[in-house]
Amino acid sequence: MNILLVYAHPEAQSLNGSLKNFAVKHLQDAGHQVQVSDLYAMKWKASLDGEDRTDRDSANRFSPVLDSRIALEQGTQSADIALEQEKLLWADTVILQFPLWWFSMPAILKGWVERVYAYGFAYGVGEHSDTHWGDRYGEGTLAGKRAMLLVTAGGWESHYSPRGINGPIEDILFPIHHGILYYPGFDVLPPFVAYRTDRFDEAKFPDLCSALGKRLDALASTEPLPFRKQNFGDYAIPQLTLREDIAPGRSGFAVHLK
Amino acid sequence: MNILLVYAHPEAQSLNGSLKNFAVKHLQDAGHQVQVSDLYAMKWKASLDGEDRTDRDSANRFSPVLDSRIALEQGTQSADIALEQEKLLWADTVILQFPLWWFSMPAILKGWVERVYAYGFAYGVGEHSDTHWGDRYGEGTLAGKRAMLLVTAGGWESHYSPRGINGPIEDILFPIHHGILYYPGFDVLPPFVAYRTDRFDEAKFPDLCSALGKRLDALASTEPLPFRKQNFGDYAIPQLTLREDIAPGRSGFAVHLK
Repeated sequence: MNILLVYAHPEAQSLNGSLKNFAVKHLQDAGHQVQVSDLYAMKWKASLDGEDRTDRDSANRFSPVLDSRIALEQGTQSADIALEQEKLLWADTVILQFPLWWFSMPAILKGWVERVYAYGFAYGVGEHSDTHWGDRYGEGTLAGKRAMLLVTAGGWESHYSPRGINGPIEDILFPIHHGILYYPGFDVLPPFVAYRTDRFDEAKFPDLCSALGKRLDALASTEPLPFRKQNFGDYAIPQLTLREDIAPGRSGFAVHLK
Repeated sequence: MNILLVYAHPEAQSLNGSLKNFAVKHLQDAGHQVQVSDLYAMKWKASLDGEDRTDRDSANRFSPVLDSRIALEQGTQSADIALEQEKLLWADTVILQFPLWWFSMPAILKGWVERVYAYGFAYGVGEHSDTHWGDRYGEGTLAGKRAMLLVTAGGWESHYSPRGINGPIEDILFPIHHGILYYPGFDVLPPFVAYRTDRFDEAKFPDLCSALGKRLDALASTEPLPFRKQNFGDYAIPQLTLREDIAPGRSGFAVHLK
């Protein structure tokens, strides 16, 4: 299949760089087509601003939403944005690879999301009515595609365990899994997370690659995280609260998984 | 007191811009000293990389951790980073103001955190031993200072309610509150969040300012979020899991609040 790896680490000679090289070769050896968006190498523009629309009249007030919409409709998006959108449409599976910095993705990758996820492409898609609140959370431009995070974390696995001080890794990643990947339609696979990578023992690299290789071999068959679809009865519209008889009395991120 | 407002919106004529102007004037009128880091106006460099250390030998492999440490120790940080650190040390209270984009802060602000939060300044502070895992989560360089988020969200408040489809706002903000603000020592105040700001009715602006003004008037007296300190017995070290007799059987972000 077609696989897009979006990669965000500033140093090619890093553990992340080595993992990226392993992943690309492993996927290609398995017969897949692979494209890599190496954001640091591409000198990706991280900050969303008025320059992202090439025909904007700078005398006018800039609206992140409206200018994004007009630029997509008129074909006047910045070329780097349009190219990444084409890669997303080409891909069957998208992998976002990054070091966990301050409990989220690096700024350069967040800026990739903000700029590439245009209005009309990743949000503002589909009808808004009393029964349908846009094509999102289970529907959307990227529906039918799969996505997976490949993350390195400096801390220990126990620090990210259900009662670990950083918070559970699945909750830390929920805004990305659910809010960035599931939102425009991706089926989201469980993440691959490597821990204690700040003082990584190189002797462990083959084992790490072996574990990653197994996940890459199973990209097409792995069961996605069972997020609930928005427009199929589980949520009241337009409040978008979970129906009272589903997971009664419970709240938090976990209620949005079946 | 001394107040630093770190502000991340690309358009001065936006609701965020108006709220920022209101906040600055309101605080100054109350006798406070205010500095604003207007990241877009400053053309803040969002992406952390090897150029953040001015004396780095580019033939060497770049380490985000090690190069940050050396640059801080040797006084060879990029000037923009050192200046923001001085502002943080000057401030009694820090406000981070931003629109919620894809369930987190804009990339330009995330990049401010990544670059200004140097090793030895915001992490890698203090001793690591069997009873003390660094000065963090309740201790650290910024201990004794207060911080608050000022956030605008396009969606409805119910979408961010305990059973809302986006997840509860307090969980969405936990990685920032706990992982970015509490981590280096801040006492974190409850956030000020304005909802439905994508189609904001200007007639509501005075009420919004009034509500914000009350929160600004109470910066010194508002009770901080009761996060648990790391090194004072609540957590096993080095596993950093919550002691079994505290919130027994529970897990998730909420167990880290008393």
